[in-house]
Amino acid sequence: MEFPEVVRQRYATKRFDGRTLPQGKIDELLELIRLAPSALNLQPWKIKVISDPEMKATLAPATGNPEMTTTASHILVFCADTEMETLVGKTMDGMVKAGVPGQIMTHVRELCEQMVLCLDTQQRKEWSTHQVFLALGNAVNGAKALGFDSCPVTEFKPEEFRRILNVPAHLFPVVICPLGYGAQPANPKLRFPLEDILL
Amino acid sequence: MEFPEVVRQRYATKRFDGRTLPQGKIDELLELIRLAPSALNLQPWKIKVISDPEMKATLAPATGNPEMTTTASHILVFCADTEMETLVGKTMDGMVKAGVPGQIMTHVRELCEQMVLCLDTQQRKEWSTHQVFLALGNAVNGAKALGFDSCPVTEFKPEEFRRILNVPAHLFPVVICPLGYGAQPANPKLRFPLEDILL
Repeated sequence: MEFPEVVRQRYATKRFDGRTLPQGKIDELLELIRLAPSALNLQPWKIKVISDPEMKATLAPATGNPEMTTTASHILVFCADTEMETLVGKTMDGMVKAGVPGQIMTHVRELCEQMVLCLDTQQRKEWSTHQVFLALGNAVNGAKALGFDSCPVTEFKPEEFRRILNVPAHLFPVVICPLGYGAQPANPKLRFPLEDILL
Repeated sequence: MEFPEVVRQRYATKRFDGRTLPQGKIDELLELIRLAPSALNLQPWKIKVISDPEMKATLAPATGNPEMTTTASHILVFCADTEMETLVGKTMDGMVKAGVPGQIMTHVRELCEQMVLCLDTQQRKEWSTHQVFLALGNAVNGAKALGFDSCPVTEFKPEEFRRILNVPAHLFPVVICPLGYGAQPANPKLRFPLEDILL
């Protein structure tokens, strides 16, 4: 499907029909998420993939729409990573292995110091969350492109998710994305007219 | 182009060849951005489209890569909108016009109160910035799908942009996106292996 058609057809699916997505589709989607852009290429995200029905039922009360959570095939829990030193180190290692010239490496290192290594935990969480939403964009468009549905959800209890899923302290669950096959057709897309979003 | 191919081919283009994009392409891209998802469908973004060479030259020193800024055909300046009362009002008006049932309207109104209307300006800026990064995802993937290139840029001086572009106080420039035709081929994509981004 051409990307403009993906964008037109994608919709926030509030109820799924309970069918299970093939693992191959999940793998393809994770690859599209993995390739998402991020500032300084730091990829500051960790994703927990939930497919176990008991776990979905356990998480459901910590979400704003328990029925969506339990009827979804899979749930992606996107966490913002604040362990910047590790991310910078890994990104630089990857550049060394790829033979990136030293001058560029030095510049990237300086930018990392100026833009992320100097941040406190709350600022790191915010910075990483911005990047997570780029990855989320690939998830929701990717799902539609691969023939299924999704719904980005920020209405959930992050600290409940942390407790249930045993999420380490340096990671922050910031958005979840139930996946599956929609149980209802999409409603018409409501958007502001173009002139309203231009400055 | 199929979406997975878009994702594989898209890259952060650091230098453009100076050619101007046809207005029709910009219009198509803006439509893909307009249709981006956002929490509560609040669409809390305003976009300034810059194409004037003199304005690009004026903005260039306020960006981390002046050459990218001046060689780009257009620059999208994404602003996070913090005027939530207006956004909620417009979103609700759109739902009324579309005949959305009153029960759903009431629920959405409650969610708006719980999730955004209660936030202070800094929190609103952060909340809206998350959504802006979803729109940005459509911009960078959309550009590649439409046959041109882009680069999401957070290394710029927002307050300089505010001054030069006369951005109102309730809007915050949070990311810019130069657009054009890349002057160099893409470098190989460097990403962490899948196991490193799974929790």
